[in-house]
Amino acid sequence: MTIESAIEEMARKARGASSVIAKTGTDAKNKVLLSIADGLYAQTEEILKENGKDVARAKELGLTGAMIDRLTITEETIRSMGEGLTEVSRLADPVGAVGESWIRPNGLQVSRMRIPLGVIGIIYESRPNVTIDAAGLCLKAGNAAILRGGSEAFHSNQALSHIIQQALGTHGLPAETIQVVNVRDRSAVYNLLKQEDCIDLIIPRGGESLIRSVVENSTIPVLKHYKGVCHVYVDEGADPDMASDICFNAKVQRPGVCNALETLLIHSAEAASVLPAIAVRLRKAGVEIRGCPKTMHILPDATPAAESDWPEEFLDLILAVKIVGSMDEAIAHIGRYGSNHTETIVTANYQRARRFLREVDASVVLVNASTRFNDGGQLGLGAEIGISTSKLHAFGPMGVEELTTTKFVVFGDGQIRE
Amino acid sequence: MTIESAIEEMARKARGASSVIAKTGTDAKNKVLLSIADGLYAQTEEILKENGKDVARAKELGLTGAMIDRLTITEETIRSMGEGLTEVSRLADPVGAVGESWIRPNGLQVSRMRIPLGVIGIIYESRPNVTIDAAGLCLKAGNAAILRGGSEAFHSNQALSHIIQQALGTHGLPAETIQVVNVRDRSAVYNLLKQEDCIDLIIPRGGESLIRSVVENSTIPVLKHYKGVCHVYVDEGADPDMASDICFNAKVQRPGVCNALETLLIHSAEAASVLPAIAVRLRKAGVEIRGCPKTMHILPDATPAAESDWPEEFLDLILAVKIVGSMDEAIAHIGRYGSNHTETIVTANYQRARRFLREVDASVVLVNASTRFNDGGQLGLGAEIGISTSKLHAFGPMGVEELTTTKFVVFGDGQIRE
Repeated sequence: MTIESAIEEMARKARGASSVIAKTGTDAKNKVLLSIADGLYAQTEEILKENGKDVARAKELGLTGAMIDRLTITEETIRSMGEGLTEVSRLADPVGAVGESWIRPNGLQVSRMRIPLGVIGIIYESRPNVTIDAAGLCLKAGNAAILRGGSEAFHSNQALSHIIQQALGTHGLPAETIQVVNVRDRSAVYNLLKQEDCIDLIIPRGGESLIRSVVENSTIPVLKHYKGVCHVYVDEGADPDMASDICFNAKVQRPGVCNALETLLIHSAEAASVLPAIAVRLRKAGVEIRGCPKTMHILPDATPAAESDWPEEFLDLILAVKIVGSMDEAIAHIGRYGSNHTETIVTANYQRARRFLREVDASVVLVNASTRFNDGGQLGLGAEIGISTSKLHAFGPMGVEELTTTKFVVFGDGQIRE
Repeated sequence: MTIESAIEEMARKARGASSVIAKTGTDAKNKVLLSIADGLYAQTEEILKENGKDVARAKELGLTGAMIDRLTITEETIRSMGEGLTEVSRLADPVGAVGESWIRPNGLQVSRMRIPLGVIGIIYESRPNVTIDAAGLCLKAGNAAILRGGSEAFHSNQALSHIIQQALGTHGLPAETIQVVNVRDRSAVYNLLKQEDCIDLIIPRGGESLIRSVVENSTIPVLKHYKGVCHVYVDEGADPDMASDICFNAKVQRPGVCNALETLLIHSAEAASVLPAIAVRLRKAGVEIRGCPKTMHILPDATPAAESDWPEEFLDLILAVKIVGSMDEAIAHIGRYGSNHTETIVTANYQRARRFLREVDASVVLVNASTRFNDGGQLGLGAEIGISTSKLHAFGPMGVEELTTTKFVVFGDGQIRE
């Protein structure tokens, strides 16, 4: 069988399984989730052994330490995957929920019912825990899924896939509900992206080049997340301690993630009094400051910022700092260099808080809170499958509800159209 | 300037204009809509003259009568475009609406605010009224739009575009908010489909081949509508008169549209008593019946249905009829041959009504009502920009709200992440 026909068959089987899982009740889905967790605990030794093969091969191939770190499964990783599944089992089931209903002049009663999307394809890089997290969220939302992890995690993903399919089988559900593509060849991905008749949505998780390549090659809708160039704007009259706490937390608490702060914008009226104290704290934590010319006056031993620093997602202990003359200048800077991800204002002013919330074009806009709160768990959605920076269907963190859609349901008494 | 760079510049200007229209208040947007309507009435003569050039050229080129009919603008068309704009001006403005809000354990207050999508590209065929309808809906939802009509409507679309841009100018809004691509060359479309940094959504309106070509070539998300293969299932115990009225209305009231009935499924217990009476009514209206073998026993002078009739969107006075042994068989037939568009059950049975609503996978599922109600106006959404048969973002009729998305807005008091 060619790769093309193998992928076609997987997609067709997933479509078939999707109509079974769509009708499966909440209790049955939750039992599968908990069975997968039990399987992970019971087969820890087997998982670690298979993961060991991948890690050994990665070392032979000379992959970076960071990549090997992301690839490695420990007992702790397994516990965390199991706990994640338990958490997802406790989330409300979105499927079948009916929202507001209205009556038309002719008596038709109209409402929308939440339904699964159908079949979701997920394409990701080395972290094998995505296999479990994604399978759990897709199942909870009543979807079938085709998962394609990185080829470097081949054996790990096979072992995890085996546990998922065992749990599905135990509860009488089709094994094809969750399938893992076990083909190392990259052409498998391109074939997957053309199965628009059987796959409803593609979610790529990984670096920008992976995502761009998926977008360019897919005839299936893609929910994408490019990068997070997040700003904090410290407004005129902002509380200096609050500004310092929020900047420090947003930059330092976990600098390698998409909702970390990259550029601090500070109103010129506050710069001289606020910047030096913030800079001391940041430098103690090892943060390099790259400042605009006005910042260099206040912090002469900072590094001068280059134009290329403003649109940069550092993902590191580096902070660009720019002094602005007004909130309008801050909003214009964000419009030009931001990535529609997460933007915070620190302010005590009612009108400007309201205006910032309305006018800044980002998936999450905050007043007086750290950018690090752009996260499905933190915002109360439960687990998340990613953060969308494109606007269609979902903008911001995507929880289990974002893996569903709605159809119209209409109750009549024999109405016909005039 | 090459076509490529001309399209790139249009897209860039649309992106710029989108941030102005996104912030424009409801009153100002409504004034523009009404000014466009006034412009249409005032410049009727000019529009008819320009449209006449297109119609003359279409006749020279030997286009079909149906195509020339769709292309032709009359005083009646102009009145209907103007009334459509007035209607859209009366719809509630979705932009800025904030839904449910919730408090996190740390005190953060989280909610979602409705915002425009940004820039919408609309690609359509000969009907020039789409230029006005689409511009109106995009404007009301706070979006910029780039419209690309059929080259056969070149002069008509130029005249309409002129009126739209005059109205925008009168109210101090950028003319680039609504742009009409005035390039006949097809490559303009392909260039448009690659402007993913400046265009957020593509909506193609037209035949299946246009839509497939857009999907294959676009790196921008596409909201698509393939075809409507709609069914009515007459259940065991259904009221025969209601069944007859609904079938007749769904098939005959306007057979050339996507929500018209194409296949009637009827329970075997009712076929002998219900089918002959329905057939008489349908035949009087000129409907050709293509029946399954069991139908042929009851209606011996019907045409035997071929396998190719079941997935067919006739868009004509033709009805396929199949007798089924159970609702499950009807649902399976719909699953196999339907197009996820509109499905109706005629029934008096509570459980089966509920199960049909839940289990049938279509954008609109109805009990005891004509399929013809799958329409934004009929379902209470106001005007519609199309009917989506793909599930992402919108499934079913798309009104002004479907031309928006939501962002998260978060109110804090200095919260940082632990």
